[in-house]
Amino acid sequence: MIGQRFIQMLEDHPYFEIEGLYASERSNGKRLSEVLKVRDHVYKDETMDREIETMDISKIAANCRVAFSGIPSDLAGPTETQLADAGVAVFTNAGSHRMDPNVPILIPEVNPGHLESIKDQATYANGGFIVTNANCSSTGIAAPLAAMDNAFGLKQVFVSTYQALSGAGYPGVPSLDAVGNVVPYIGGEEEKMESELAKMLGTYSDGAFHFADFKVMANCARVPVVDGHLESLVLDFEAQPTLEELEACLTGFRGEPQTLGLPSAPEQPIIVRSESNRPQPVFDAMAGRPERARGMAVTIGRLRQSNGYYKAFAMSHNTLRGGAGGSVLNAELMKAKGLL
Amino acid sequence: MIGQRFIQMLEDHPYFEIEGLYASERSNGKRLSEVLKVRDHVYKDETMDREIETMDISKIAANCRVAFSGIPSDLAGPTETQLADAGVAVFTNAGSHRMDPNVPILIPEVNPGHLESIKDQATYANGGFIVTNANCSSTGIAAPLAAMDNAFGLKQVFVSTYQALSGAGYPGVPSLDAVGNVVPYIGGEEEKMESELAKMLGTYSDGAFHFADFKVMANCARVPVVDGHLESLVLDFEAQPTLEELEACLTGFRGEPQTLGLPSAPEQPIIVRSESNRPQPVFDAMAGRPERARGMAVTIGRLRQSNGYYKAFAMSHNTLRGGAGGSVLNAELMKAKGLL
Amino acid sequence: MIGQRFIQMLEDHPYFEIEGLYASERSNGKRLSEVLKVRDHVYKDETMDREIETMDISKIAANCRVAFSGIPSDLAGPTETQLADAGVAVFTNAGSHRMDPNVPILIPEVNPGHLESIKDQATYANGGFIVTNANCSSTGIAAPLAAMDNAFGLKQVFVSTYQALSGAGYPGVPSLDAVGNVVPYIGGEEEKMESELAKMLGTYSDGAFHFADFKVMANCARVPVVDGHLESLVLDFEAQPTLEELEACLTGFRGEPQTLGLPSAPEQPIIVRSESNRPQPVFDAMAGRPERARGMAVTIGRLRQSNGYYKAFAMSHNTLRGGAGGSVLNAELMKAKGLL
Amino acid sequence: MIGQRFIQMLEDHPYFEIEGLYASERSNGKRLSEVLKVRDHVYKDETMDREIETMDISKIAANCRVAFSGIPSDLAGPTETQLADAGVAVFTNAGSHRMDPNVPILIPEVNPGHLESIKDQATYANGGFIVTNANCSSTGIAAPLAAMDNAFGLKQVFVSTYQALSGAGYPGVPSLDAVGNVVPYIGGEEEKMESELAKMLGTYSDGAFHFADFKVMANCARVPVVDGHLESLVLDFEAQPTLEELEACLTGFRGEPQTLGLPSAPEQPIIVRSESNRPQPVFDAMAGRPERARGMAVTIGRLRQSNGYYKAFAMSHNTLRGGAGGSVLNAELMKAKGLL
Repeated sequence: MIGQRFIQMLEDHPYFEIEGLYASERSNGKRLSEVLKVRDHVYKDETMDREIETMDISKIAANCRVAFSGIPSDLAGPTETQLADAGVAVFTNAGSHRMDPNVPILIPEVNPGHLESIKDQATYANGGFIVTNANCSSTGIAAPLAAMDNAFGLKQVFVSTYQALSGAGYPGVPSLDAVGNVVPYIGGEEEKMESELAKMLGTYSDGAFHFADFKVMANCARVPVVDGHLESLVLDFEAQPTLEELEACLTGFRGEPQTLGLPSAPEQPIIVRSESNRPQPVFDAMAGRPERARGMAVTIGRLRQSNGYYKAFAMSHNTLRGGAGGSVLNAELMKAKGLL
Repeated sequence: MIGQRFIQMLEDHPYFEIEGLYASERSNGKRLSEVLKVRDHVYKDETMDREIETMDISKIAANCRVAFSGIPSDLAGPTETQLADAGVAVFTNAGSHRMDPNVPILIPEVNPGHLESIKDQATYANGGFIVTNANCSSTGIAAPLAAMDNAFGLKQVFVSTYQALSGAGYPGVPSLDAVGNVVPYIGGEEEKMESELAKMLGTYSDGAFHFADFKVMANCARVPVVDGHLESLVLDFEAQPTLEELEACLTGFRGEPQTLGLPSAPEQPIIVRSESNRPQPVFDAMAGRPERARGMAVTIGRLRQSNGYYKAFAMSHNTLRGGAGGSVLNAELMKAKGLL
Repeated sequence: MIGQRFIQMLEDHPYFEIEGLYASERSNGKRLSEVLKVRDHVYKDETMDREIETMDISKIAANCRVAFSGIPSDLAGPTETQLADAGVAVFTNAGSHRMDPNVPILIPEVNPGHLESIKDQATYANGGFIVTNANCSSTGIAAPLAAMDNAFGLKQVFVSTYQALSGAGYPGVPSLDAVGNVVPYIGGEEEKMESELAKMLGTYSDGAFHFADFKVMANCARVPVVDGHLESLVLDFEAQPTLEELEACLTGFRGEPQTLGLPSAPEQPIIVRSESNRPQPVFDAMAGRPERARGMAVTIGRLRQSNGYYKAFAMSHNTLRGGAGGSVLNAELMKAKGLL
Repeated sequence: MIGQRFIQMLEDHPYFEIEGLYASERSNGKRLSEVLKVRDHVYKDETMDREIETMDISKIAANCRVAFSGIPSDLAGPTETQLADAGVAVFTNAGSHRMDPNVPILIPEVNPGHLESIKDQATYANGGFIVTNANCSSTGIAAPLAAMDNAFGLKQVFVSTYQALSGAGYPGVPSLDAVGNVVPYIGGEEEKMESELAKMLGTYSDGAFHFADFKVMANCARVPVVDGHLESLVLDFEAQPTLEELEACLTGFRGEPQTLGLPSAPEQPIIVRSESNRPQPVFDAMAGRPERARGMAVTIGRLRQSNGYYKAFAMSHNTLRGGAGGSVLNAELMKAKGLL
């Protein structure tokens, strides 16, 4: 699923050109048209005509400055390390290196300063490094949490997820577990949310990441939705903003991607809906403009107060903003800043 | 949906006999076979042969000691008051009278002592009174919360719901809002959870209810599941029990229905599952034994600790334990105690 | 659902400009943003800012040369007649006038010659007339049937439908009937397929329609799919073409919309897929290029022979090609031919 | 899925006792409670306490007169042959031996005379033989077709299936292919329907099966339904019965299982529904009484005439009547006739 979204987001990209597609042996020699199955995108014929090759680190290094990785996590760890060793700039959606000491979990709107960390990666001298993006459920709320943390001081986050099936890849979740059902378990997901958000919203200085000190309590479940993670939030702040202040903080949020006008950056990264029953996967997963930024905005709705806490629902596209799109935006940021 | 479950639960009941079926004009004169559509129950032919009559308070009062009410909430308020005035014992699933001063929200395992309040209802002298049960999402977690509150002192409850479509009745939720989607809004549900649980877990003395002082922060959403509400929980206790103590407290919980051997009472009211991915609607909504108590047990799973809080998922059947079955169990309790 | 698709297809249209939006009293005075909910389309802000007005025939006639109608069928009959009387060119998706003597059921690729019939409508002299498009399940197979009928002589069509929920409008099918279920009944649909296809594939001469003489046996069912009707086919021809001849006939099919380059016409109106398991709603409902023609192509797959019959599955978008898009294409045809 | 249904149907069986559960190495040593996941059945604790052993032909032969087989088809062929060689009576749901010369595809209501064929199996002398049941979509319509063929002379069957997900086993169909989608392809299913029905409705004489000579044209598709295959039918008869005659023929149909009062036989094997929108999976898949025969009746609805053909929808439970229940009923028939 992620690989398909990478191809979609890199088609006709103003900064990057697809030099080759590489996969483990399973897909070797297949034509792209045999494996591409993205529901809401019409590929051009020339895109479909490409062939998928077997991964060959030295060949990739010889031909590519940048590698986007959506490799299964068991392969991603060593493969990405080899690519960085070979001087390739790796932007990965896999989880293997996220908690490594000098590897950033980057969201350009949230923590562009974390790019400092890659200079402390051993391979940086020869041009190779690894930049990760967060897991999809953390990504979906990172920007809103960062915006509100800056303004009101975040102390505690109680989050429950309603996660889409595409997050489990293909074949992924068996249909007998999905149709008319909810599975209240996604292996490792709650632990990831509790650690990755703290790393992302922390700082990097003196060669080390310093984690943010708010607490995350996550309950993660899989629902029969194709694309788009919905998350319920109860938030505990130092301050007690009005709901209007909260909304203004979210709506007004902008980051470097907006300032720099990155191609895949949504004009408004956080959209607040006023309807009583939004956000919903079928209407809001693809939020974001212009066309290239569809699925890159986060939507927030149902802002409420209760017992001194704040409640809301957040929604984001798990394989675009929370997957391939996140990696592509990270690369766009570095390119625009002259770091690639 | 609730009316159908009432008929299912009262078929061949050892305490009660269905004297008549009454509906607003819409269903008047229809045969039961035209409106009954319960998915997991095979009705006997003699059940299906009944006719539905128009509601006539004085006729009902002349023929019935007990009325079970699953009337739409706009009609329920005045109709149930009229029935109580006419000397009928009303057990209702409707929300209209739940917050009335001397009307209990009864769960026999949780607050049988609240029955004292009906003696203070003005109509009690002539035999009429109203007993309500809670809304379906509150019911589903009331027994576990009561058990844990008694043992460990409950301070805060953060709950997010994954609620089934049958909770909205028929025709209820349009399919275009349900298929492949989640709707993060159920009108009034969050407010009900925040007030009804506090009333149910409180006490009744000196002619008044005294609400429990723990706090509830609820986020409610509708998922494409037919029957069975799943709820994620983060709990804050005075004490810091081990997970083993927590599980023992839940598993060992019994109430008056179990002591009295009420017909619709599950032998074990709270079932704790040890699998990593339970409870799930398709497997656990119908939990409960013996046969008559199917759908009357609550299932808890994924007990965890995080940052000093406790996390879990709970599951219960929203139109059985959380609907018609709750009202029937309330009536069984009063019958067994000689109060009917 | 159809109204929303009309707005989508007319946004930035090269031939037509939306002068006003008119609805029955229910939607009167609402802003468009309150009612528009199309899943795979991002409306521009200026589109959303429009207001919906109550229908006023004389006002519409004063301002509009063309009216696109997606009115509920109970209102459509008299309203559309009034519009034609007032000199408006009516392109309607409603079924009320489809079987009227001089009213064509038009599919520009299939029966452009049927436009002759409007000249025999009483209102034509003053510029008013009615052009209908077929019901969505007939439209989905009309072009392939026409192509094959011309080449091989169609005798019998056995068709079973797997129809999408959006075909029933909103709120339409209750979710309890849709989730994990199939409803083998759509009121009037089978009769429509059996009569409309024969009219569409027939001829118009001497002031009357002469129906084609092949026979249609239809079984219609609703499946839990959002958009896109799938239809299974068993076909009986005069000739016994090879599967290669059959495929060539379908793939090579072109009509006036392609010759004229109509804006909403798909370059290739019938797409034959060679995969073993296509067409599928999630991949093929939106078939059609260029961008404006998405959802306007029909996809055919699984061509097989059995016992002298031919088998296949066909797929088309029920609210685009089979709904609003069909009406828009009809208007485009008349505009391009100088008839508007 | 089939193995679980076998255990369900054999629990507390009046004729048979479960001596052991055998599986390929994968499940070896697991307890039953770890693998049993049947949605609408509550197992007794003593059932769940059993252990699953690795298949050992000689051990099974030493301990069991009968083996029920729900083995994957790649293993079923040789394993079942070995069991029959070892003197075991094999009742199998697998497809491997269905078209073997002296192996019957048995449906007790339809072709009990086909049991003659097992006497011609080489292993019969030492007590071993193989009896198969048909694939699930053929089984669902075999009894109605047989009843109508006898009365009116069947010439042609045009059938389109709406098949449930459980027919593909577990994990089976990926959820991304199932949610909001239909897959118009089930490998080998159409061919099976076209050959197995002809064998079942044929005769056995002179040591060979003589196939019925009506023709079957099948289109098979998978829909997002958990249990219960729906099938649309267009039927071509020698005679032209009235719809009343057709209904009487179906409703009055009885076979040997009903005469013999077999434990899993439904009192009425074919149920005709008069509602306009039945049968539906959620209401009719579990049709059949008494309790042990739930899911063993076939439901027919929407009987219509069109162009000299007859149309209908049929529904049956694919893993009960069309799976494990079919095998169990076959064994019950032989036991009741003294053949076991």
